[in-house]
Amino acid sequence: MFPEILTIASIRNAYAKGATPLDLAEEIITRRHAATDPAIFILPVADDALRAAARDLMAGPRDLPLWGIPYVAKDNIDVAGLPTTAGCPAYAYHPAVDATVIARLRAAGALLVGKTNLDQFATGLNGTRSPHGAPRSVFNADYVSGGSSSGSAVAVASGVASFGLGTDTAGSGRVPAAFNNLVGIKPTPGLVPNTGVVPACRSVDVVTVFAGCVADGVAVRAVMEGVDTGDGFTRAAQPVGIRPNPRIGVLAGGEREFYGNSGYEALYDAAIARAKALGATIVPFDYAPFREAAALLYDGPWVAERLAAVDSFYASNAADFDPTVGAIIGGAGRYSAVDAFNGRYRLEELRAQVAPVWEAVDLLLLPTSPTIYSVADMLADPVTKNSHFGRYTNFANLLGYAAIAVPAGITPDGLPGGVTLIGPGFSDDGLAAFAAALHESAACGMGRDTAAAIPALDTSAIPKGMIPIAVVGAHLTGMPLNHQLTDAGGRLLRETTTDPAYRLYALDGTVPPKPGLVRAADGAAIKVEIWALPDAAFGRFVAAIPAPLGIGKLTLADGSAVSGFLCEAHALTTAKDITHFGGWRAYIASL
Amino acid sequence: MFPEILTIASIRNAYAKGATPLDLAEEIITRRHAATDPAIFILPVADDALRAAARDLMAGPRDLPLWGIPYVAKDNIDVAGLPTTAGCPAYAYHPAVDATVIARLRAAGALLVGKTNLDQFATGLNGTRSPHGAPRSVFNADYVSGGSSSGSAVAVASGVASFGLGTDTAGSGRVPAAFNNLVGIKPTPGLVPNTGVVPACRSVDVVTVFAGCVADGVAVRAVMEGVDTGDGFTRAAQPVGIRPNPRIGVLAGGEREFYGNSGYEALYDAAIARAKALGATIVPFDYAPFREAAALLYDGPWVAERLAAVDSFYASNAADFDPTVGAIIGGAGRYSAVDAFNGRYRLEELRAQVAPVWEAVDLLLLPTSPTIYSVADMLADPVTKNSHFGRYTNFANLLGYAAIAVPAGITPDGLPGGVTLIGPGFSDDGLAAFAAALHESAACGMGRDTAAAIPALDTSAIPKGMIPIAVVGAHLTGMPLNHQLTDAGGRLLRETTTDPAYRLYALDGTVPPKPGLVRAADGAAIKVEIWALPDAAFGRFVAAIPAPLGIGKLTLADGSAVSGFLCEAHALTTAKDITHFGGWRAYIASL
Repeated sequence: MFPEILTIASIRNAYAKGATPLDLAEEIITRRHAATDPAIFILPVADDALRAAARDLMAGPRDLPLWGIPYVAKDNIDVAGLPTTAGCPAYAYHPAVDATVIARLRAAGALLVGKTNLDQFATGLNGTRSPHGAPRSVFNADYVSGGSSSGSAVAVASGVASFGLGTDTAGSGRVPAAFNNLVGIKPTPGLVPNTGVVPACRSVDVVTVFAGCVADGVAVRAVMEGVDTGDGFTRAAQPVGIRPNPRIGVLAGGEREFYGNSGYEALYDAAIARAKALGATIVPFDYAPFREAAALLYDGPWVAERLAAVDSFYASNAADFDPTVGAIIGGAGRYSAVDAFNGRYRLEELRAQVAPVWEAVDLLLLPTSPTIYSVADMLADPVTKNSHFGRYTNFANLLGYAAIAVPAGITPDGLPGGVTLIGPGFSDDGLAAFAAALHESAACGMGRDTAAAIPALDTSAIPKGMIPIAVVGAHLTGMPLNHQLTDAGGRLLRETTTDPAYRLYALDGTVPPKPGLVRAADGAAIKVEIWALPDAAFGRFVAAIPAPLGIGKLTLADGSAVSGFLCEAHALTTAKDITHFGGWRAYIASL
Repeated sequence: MFPEILTIASIRNAYAKGATPLDLAEEIITRRHAATDPAIFILPVADDALRAAARDLMAGPRDLPLWGIPYVAKDNIDVAGLPTTAGCPAYAYHPAVDATVIARLRAAGALLVGKTNLDQFATGLNGTRSPHGAPRSVFNADYVSGGSSSGSAVAVASGVASFGLGTDTAGSGRVPAAFNNLVGIKPTPGLVPNTGVVPACRSVDVVTVFAGCVADGVAVRAVMEGVDTGDGFTRAAQPVGIRPNPRIGVLAGGEREFYGNSGYEALYDAAIARAKALGATIVPFDYAPFREAAALLYDGPWVAERLAAVDSFYASNAADFDPTVGAIIGGAGRYSAVDAFNGRYRLEELRAQVAPVWEAVDLLLLPTSPTIYSVADMLADPVTKNSHFGRYTNFANLLGYAAIAVPAGITPDGLPGGVTLIGPGFSDDGLAAFAAALHESAACGMGRDTAAAIPALDTSAIPKGMIPIAVVGAHLTGMPLNHQLTDAGGRLLRETTTDPAYRLYALDGTVPPKPGLVRAADGAAIKVEIWALPDAAFGRFVAAIPAPLGIGKLTLADGSAVSGFLCEAHALTTAKDITHFGGWRAYIASL
C-alpha cells in the first residue's frame, strides 16, 4: 500500500485509494521495529501514542496541506510533551510549547514519528558524536550517516518517515542528504523561524528538511516559513527568481578538492554535465573567498556562539559533553569581543569580494561533501575528517544563501554522493525548479530505493512574492524580448490560451515586431505564456512598456483573469488582423 | 552676494548672476579668518589651495550636481593629500586615496574647505573631547556644539561651508544639528559607503550630512550613496516610501525625559503639534525597547568595535588618548566573544519587540537631544551628561533606521533645539518630504540666521527605486481608492493634464465609480495626478487592477510619457462620455 520511500504524493495516492493515517502509522511502527539502524531515534513516539495521533487526524479536517504525512524531528527542536536533549542527556529539558516549526507542521496535519539522533549540540557534520550511537549511511553500515542531523536523514532514507527536520549551521542539513541519497532543503537564514530550537550558532542556524524529492522538501518548507515575532532573526524578504536556464558557477582547477575520492569527483563532473544538458551555462569561478568565509565558522569567533548557547550548562557540566564537542565548545572561551567584531568585518569584506561572482552566475553548483568516511576512520581523526565534509557547505549560512542538496548518483563502491545548488538569499523557491530537474537527471532514485520514480515539482503554482503575467508576442520563449523576463528572475509557469474573445493584430512599425491584443465579441482563443515575475521586477517591467501597449487583465481559457498585455485601440487602425493564426508564434512562422 | 547661510540654492543663484567659485572661495576665506570659533577646523584647506581648487572647477565642466558648492569634512574621513587624525595627533596618517564619499563629492564638483574637529575617534556626543579645543554652539559660546561631528556642524551653522560631512554611530550626525539649528541627514546604515572612514563601530557607522535645509542634505546624500565594493557593509535596497500624511509615533508619558530642560520639552511638544497640523496622525508609543537597544551601544559589547578599530594603536599609545575616550575604549577589552554574540541576540529580540510599533506608525518623532549643557557642566561630568544627549539617538543605527534631524525652534534662553524623524531602513527619501515640512513649520531659519528663508525640497523629482504613475479617477487625492496609493508608500509628485488627445468616460456599473481614459484624435486635455510608488508596490498595484482598466503609457501636457490608467475600448460602448468636464473631479462634483 505504501512504497519504501514515503513521498507525499505516494501517501496522498494511498489515502485517495482508501488507506488511512492509522494504516500508515501501523506500517511505520512495523518498519521502525524492523529498522536495521538502531541509532536513528533518541525518542520515538510510542506506538500507542502514534496510533492515537493518527486517529486524531482522522477525526479532524482533512484539507490540511500535510494531512497524515509522517515526519521525524531532530532532537534539538522542541516538541511540547517530549524532552529536548540536543544529544546530551544531562541537558534534557521538557518544553511546554512546540517550536514554531513544529507548531506550524502540527497545524498543517503532519504526524510526528519521533525525535532523532544528532551530533551533540548540532556540533559536527558526521553523525558519530552522540551518546546514542552513530547512525549509518543507508547504503553501507560501515560508513557515517553524515551529521549533525544524522537520525532524521537515515529515517527518511529508510522509509520510517516521509520527511525529516534537521538544522544546519555549517552543513548539517546537507551532508547527511548526500550520504543517504536524499534532498536537503536548506532555507535562507531568517526564512524559517528558530523559536524553540536549541541554538548552535544562533545568528546563522537554519531549520532544514530532508525529503526524497525537491517537491516534498519545498512543500514542507513552505508550511514552516514566515516571520515569527519570537525570533528576531526571521525576515520578510522579496523572493529572488532564478532564470530557467541559469548561469551556474562550478569549481575551478585549484579549488577542486575531493581528498582522493575519485568516485565523488566523477559524480560532481557528471552533475556539471547534466546541468549543462539541462540548459545551464557553466561558469568556473574562484571558490577561494567562499572557502575563507567557510573557515570563519569553526576556525574563527563564530564558535563562541556555540558556547553562548550552552554557557552556564557548559560551566557546570563540561564532563557531560561528548569529548570532541566539549573541546570545540570549551575552546571558544578564548575569543574576545574584538575578535568577534573583527570576524564580522572579515566576513563583510569577503561578501564584497564574492559580489562579482554573483554578477556572473545565478547559482553555484558544488559537491555537497567532497568525500565520505567510514565510522572507524572518522573516530580515528574526528576533527580533521569532519572538517573535510564542510569544505563546500560552511560558507552558505554566514553569507545568507539558500541551498538545496540533491542526489548526484552512486559511486562504483556503492556509496551515494550529492551536489548542492546554492543561490542568493531568498532564492529558495527560485532554485527549486533546477534542483528538481538536476535530481531527476541523476536517475538514482530516492534514499534506499535507487530505482524509485521521483515525484515532479509543480512549477505552475504562483510563487509567493511573484506576480503572474500573460505574454503574447515578443516576450514569448525564444522571442527577441524574452530575456527581459529571464533577466528579471522570471519563471515560466505554463502555456495556455485566452478565452475565445480576443483579436490579435500585428502592429505597424514596431521594433522588434510586436502584436496588439484586444478583447472583442467576435474574437478567438489566442496562445499565451504565463510567466511569474517578482513584485518589484514586475513593476519595473510594466513601467518600461512603451505605448500603445500596456498591462491590463486578460481572461484565460479556464475563465481566470491574469495580468497581461493589451493594446490601445487607436493603434490598431494601421495594424494587420492576424487573429486566424491563433497566436504570435504561428504568425511569425508564416512570414 | 552670498547670504550668511550658504544654501545650494543661494550659491547657484549667485553663480547664475555671475559670481564664481573663486568669489565664493574668497568669501569663505574672509569668513574663516573672521570666525569667532577657533575650534572648528583641525586642518583648513590653505587659502591659496582653496583658491586654486576653485579655479580648477571654473576651468572644468559646470554641469555637475554640486559644482562649486563648498563643504567641510570631519577629520575621520580620508582626503587624499591631507592627514587624517580622528582628533588624535599621534594617530595621524596620510591617505593616498579619498574616502569613497569624498571621491564622489569631488566628482560632483564640490569644493572642500577643510577638515573639522571632532570628539576623538568619534567617541562622544558633545564636542569637548578633542585636543583641538571644544567648538561651541553658534547660539551661545558657553554651550557645547554637540559631537562627535562638532566642527562640521559649527562650520555650516556659521556660514563657512554650505554643507558638512559628519559620521554617526550613536548620534554624532544629529546632536550637533540640534545644537546649531541645522538639518542632520543620517542615512540608513549601508546606504552610503564607509570606505576610507576611520571606524568608530564599523558595523553601524554612517556618514552624515549637516546642511541648512533638508533639500541640500538630501541632494548631497544622493551624490554619496550607492554600493561600494570596498565596503562589504554597503547594501543595495529597495527604497521604502512614506505616505504624505504619516502616522507618527511620539514619546508616551513615562518615557518622556528631558533632564529638567523645560525649554526643550516645550519645543518637542510644539513639534508634535506642528506635525499634527501638517496632517500627521499622532500615535504615542512605548519607547522602552528602543531605549534598551540604545543602551547596548555604550553599555554593551558594541564598545568593543571602538577597540577593534584602534586595537594595536591603543595598545602602544594609550597615553595619547583623550582621558574620557581612552577610558571608554580601554574598558572594552573586558568583553568576550560570547558577550558580543549575546548582545547581538538581545538586539534581535528587541527588533522583534519593536516590530508592532512599526505596524502602528510610519515614522517616529523624537527629541534629537533631550537637553543641552554648558561646556563647564559637560567637563565636570563627562560621561553621564554625554549619555543624556544620546537618549533618543543611540538605537537608530543598531536597528538599521534612517533619520533626519531638523530644527525645532529656539528656547526662551536663546538656545536651539531639534527633533528627529526616524523611519524604517531605506526610507531616506521617503521621510524627507515630511522632514522638510516640519522644518519649514518651525519658522526658525537655518543655523545662525534664524530669519533665513528655507529653500523648498523639490518633491516632484522621481525618487530612485520608485515608479511614477498617472491616476485619473478613483485614485485621485481625496477619492475612495486614494488610500491604495498612500498605504503602499506612494508619494504625490504633481498635478498636470494629459496632452489634448484623450477622451474620458464614466464607466457603467463600477464600484466605486471609475472613469475610463482612451487616446483619441478628437480628444482633450484631462486632469491627472502623478504619484510615485516603490517598484514592488507599483507591481502589486498594477496586478490588482480589475478589467477593463489597465496601465499603459499616457502622454502628458509636456509631451513626456508616464505609466497611467487606460481603459479597454470594448468597455466604452455602455459608458458616458464626460470629456468636456476636463477631469474626473469636475464630473463627480457635477453629480
